[in-house]
Amino acid sequence: MTSQTASRAVVIYSGGMDSYTVLHRALREGHEVHALSFHYGQRHARELDVASEVCQSLGVAHQVVDIRAIHGLIGASALTDATQQMPRADYAEDNMKATVVPNRNMILLSLAIGHAVNLEAEICYYGAHGGDHAIYPDCRPEFVERMNDVAAIANYTPVEIRAPYLHASKDDILAEGLQMGLDYANSWTCYLGEALACGECGSCRERLQAFASQGLVDPLPYHMQSSRTREV
Amino acid sequence: MTSQTASRAVVIYSGGMDSYTVLHRALREGHEVHALSFHYGQRHARELDVASEVCQSLGVAHQVVDIRAIHGLIGASALTDATQQMPRADYAEDNMKATVVPNRNMILLSLAIGHAVNLEAEICYYGAHGGDHAIYPDCRPEFVERMNDVAAIANYTPVEIRAPYLHASKDDILAEGLQMGLDYANSWTCYLGEALACGECGSCRERLQAFASQGLVDPLPYHMQSSRTREV
Repeated sequence: MTSQTASRAVVIYSGGMDSYTVLHRALREGHEVHALSFHYGQRHARELDVASEVCQSLGVAHQVVDIRAIHGLIGASALTDATQQMPRADYAEDNMKATVVPNRNMILLSLAIGHAVNLEAEICYYGAHGGDHAIYPDCRPEFVERMNDVAAIANYTPVEIRAPYLHASKDDILAEGLQMGLDYANSWTCYLGEALACGECGSCRERLQAFASQGLVDPLPYHMQSSRTREV
Repeated sequence: MTSQTASRAVVIYSGGMDSYTVLHRALREGHEVHALSFHYGQRHARELDVASEVCQSLGVAHQVVDIRAIHGLIGASALTDATQQMPRADYAEDNMKATVVPNRNMILLSLAIGHAVNLEAEICYYGAHGGDHAIYPDCRPEFVERMNDVAAIANYTPVEIRAPYLHASKDDILAEGLQMGLDYANSWTCYLGEALACGECGSCRERLQAFASQGLVDPLPYHMQSSRTREV
């Protein structure tokens, strides 16, 4: 850490494994990190508790912003509405569209950029990655590029959006995090947010696949114990 | 109105005279209009009451979204913090920067775009105009252009941002509204939001100047009665 030259950075930190890795990467790059989590009515609000615990143990500034008031505006998805069935499928499959929240990342990034301007931070990190590209338009490289174009001029001071894993797979992210010595028991992934991870939603599947690719067993407890090691 | 061919449009409608005119323009263009107002902690929340009354009398769908939870995130400006002094100056002057809310229009547009996607609306109107350019970066043509670039690809369906008065002055907007037969007693402008308009904040000054340019007296009641006709 080079505290003398540290610039401030906002990290959008959901509590999931991608943003957990991004958080540590931003810290290792020497930034004074301000983590930001959003309560948008996700069924897996459990990830927010995990995020708070991690920030507390790292001594990182952390704000959780309750934006549930926007629900009436953007409608429900399977992520936020417990009456909808959570698709049990891989991310690339069409029925994963049930998990799309309208304009989600533009909303979250615009709030994070406002936070950055307020803090005089120059950078805003978020954890989009390659595995998201098929189903989420707001995780694709052209989205990040165009958001950067507007973030450069929307305020008196420019803010740079960094998505360090934009072209990485979940496997790559896990591999990098393990190299950094991260313990992924401190992250939460399952979209259902129950006491045990389901092992079947798109998010669990991708996570399990990443651990399998490293020849490792995920340290999280799963509802179906067989999930931890199953071939996905 | 051509209800058979009407496409849906979201109008960001603050209750001020610009968005009041935009609202009517969108209606005259034949859209099924969904008006959207934000309670972001503005001292002039009175404008929201005016907005509700107007929509009710027009039979236009209207939602007011309370986004005050984001306050801790983006900090206070003279617009939202009653302990700060409201600048009594013209818009182009430097001390009007006290009214800048970090990343305000990117935040509001991103929520409006989410609303549009949810409603299957293709267009999102907002009332940026030429008089805002000097002080608010997020009212300038390049901001609208770049927001449009990202709004085109952030979701499965593109949303077009329209700012019909982007190159117009307040005078031009008033002139067009008067031609449409609008009664500007149904709009609220003053940043202070007291029972009577102050006549001295940047927003009042610009409004009074527009009425003066038309050789008219503003129908709103002012704290300083002389304001209504004074040369600004």
